[in-house]
Amino acid sequence: MLPGFYDVIHRRRDVRAEFSGEPVDEEVLLRVLDAAHSAPSVGLSQPWDFILVSDETVRRAFWAHVQEERSEFAASLEGERAERFAGIKIDGILEASLSVVVTYDPARGAPGVLGRHAIADAGLYSVCLAIENMWLACTAEGWGMGWVSFYRESFLRELLGIPDGIRPVAWLCVGPVTALQETPDLERHGWRSRLPLEPVLHLDNWARTGPDALALAARGATRTTAVGAPARSGAPDTTEE
Amino acid sequence: MLPGFYDVIHRRRDVRAEFSGEPVDEEVLLRVLDAAHSAPSVGLSQPWDFILVSDETVRRAFWAHVQEERSEFAASLEGERAERFAGIKIDGILEASLSVVVTYDPARGAPGVLGRHAIADAGLYSVCLAIENMWLACTAEGWGMGWVSFYRESFLRELLGIPDGIRPVAWLCVGPVTALQETPDLERHGWRSRLPLEPVLHLDNWARTGPDALALAARGATRTTAVGAPARSGAPDTTEE
Repeated sequence: MLPGFYDVIHRRRDVRAEFSGEPVDEEVLLRVLDAAHSAPSVGLSQPWDFILVSDETVRRAFWAHVQEERSEFAASLEGERAERFAGIKIDGILEASLSVVVTYDPARGAPGVLGRHAIADAGLYSVCLAIENMWLACTAEGWGMGWVSFYRESFLRELLGIPDGIRPVAWLCVGPVTALQETPDLERHGWRSRLPLEPVLHLDNWARTGPDALALAARGATRTTAVGAPARSGAPDTTEE
Repeated sequence: MLPGFYDVIHRRRDVRAEFSGEPVDEEVLLRVLDAAHSAPSVGLSQPWDFILVSDETVRRAFWAHVQEERSEFAASLEGERAERFAGIKIDGILEASLSVVVTYDPARGAPGVLGRHAIADAGLYSVCLAIENMWLACTAEGWGMGWVSFYRESFLRELLGIPDGIRPVAWLCVGPVTALQETPDLERHGWRSRLPLEPVLHLDNWARTGPDALALAARGATRTTAVGAPARSGAPDTTEE
């Protein structure tokens, strides 16, 4: 058991309201970005870039765009959903010490990115892994992070001079916070409740679900059904090469 | 400083060769899956499912498919690249104690997923965040994890009975390992070297790079350029609302 690690996993929140806006410590910022940069990536391509956004003009322009997109989403809701959404803060762009835009460069390591020939999106997936490392590192450092996704990629590309072919993946607000909420904002505001784990577990086939899936998988209970292999009982078969 | 957390970040490896194949502890497996399930998700949609693959027939069928895809990629390489690739192990499907397939369900929480109206891929991004949580939890537990991406989604969908509309995102090999490599496999085999952090850092605009980006961002050096706001010197402006 490593409570320190799991404490970070479970304390992490998507922060909008709690940023303190204090100046950031350069060493902490370096550790957080280095954690992101240490993420796994398809073919070791490390296809990410980090645009640190400090300039107030840029942040205000982005914030104004996000408010427009917020209004567009709000207009798609009705009744009780619309009312609940009206009370939910969706960004901390102006309050956070810093923003970090993370982008994806499909040309890095190409051609011949090992592991991407059959799954074109594998590079995009790598960028997300880096983002989660950054999120957890912020939490470990006592910072918060919030992912703002109320924007159009074309707007952000133009705002930051991002070249064609490079895709913006996330606008992240980062920095010190006054506190982290125990319960996610969207749950506190009654937008949606978290699901338990069990309903999203399956064993060997999508159709096979149930409370015993995890126990059976751990026991290797279905590992003895190999065609052409002798059935075994007791310990799971761990000898195949 | 939290060395425990950063130790996990930096020890994490994409494992292919070091799986021990031992039976897995059910409590550890539960913690690992619960870490994945605790990841952030757009609109709190938690759009992932986990198919625990223990059945040997299923794993062998997938392994055979992966070898075909490996051959297809190998055929696209020439000369020195082809030779290097020939020596690289790309999966631990048969050796790992367990495999976990992670899928994406765009219908979960829909319609009106908060934060997805402008960025259709935001749900897919959430699934990747869960995968990274799982990867780090495996590392924290002394397990290894390897992401296999040499497969066609259509093959995997059919193999596991995954319904239309649900997208397989990853086949992950998980379980106890004999050791974790200090250096990534692809770097040890001379396929590709890791990049330093500095070249992927930018400040306020894609075109602005350089060794001072991080220090300037930390100092908030560009935060005083707001149009219509009085220029300030000294401490960064942290008072905007």
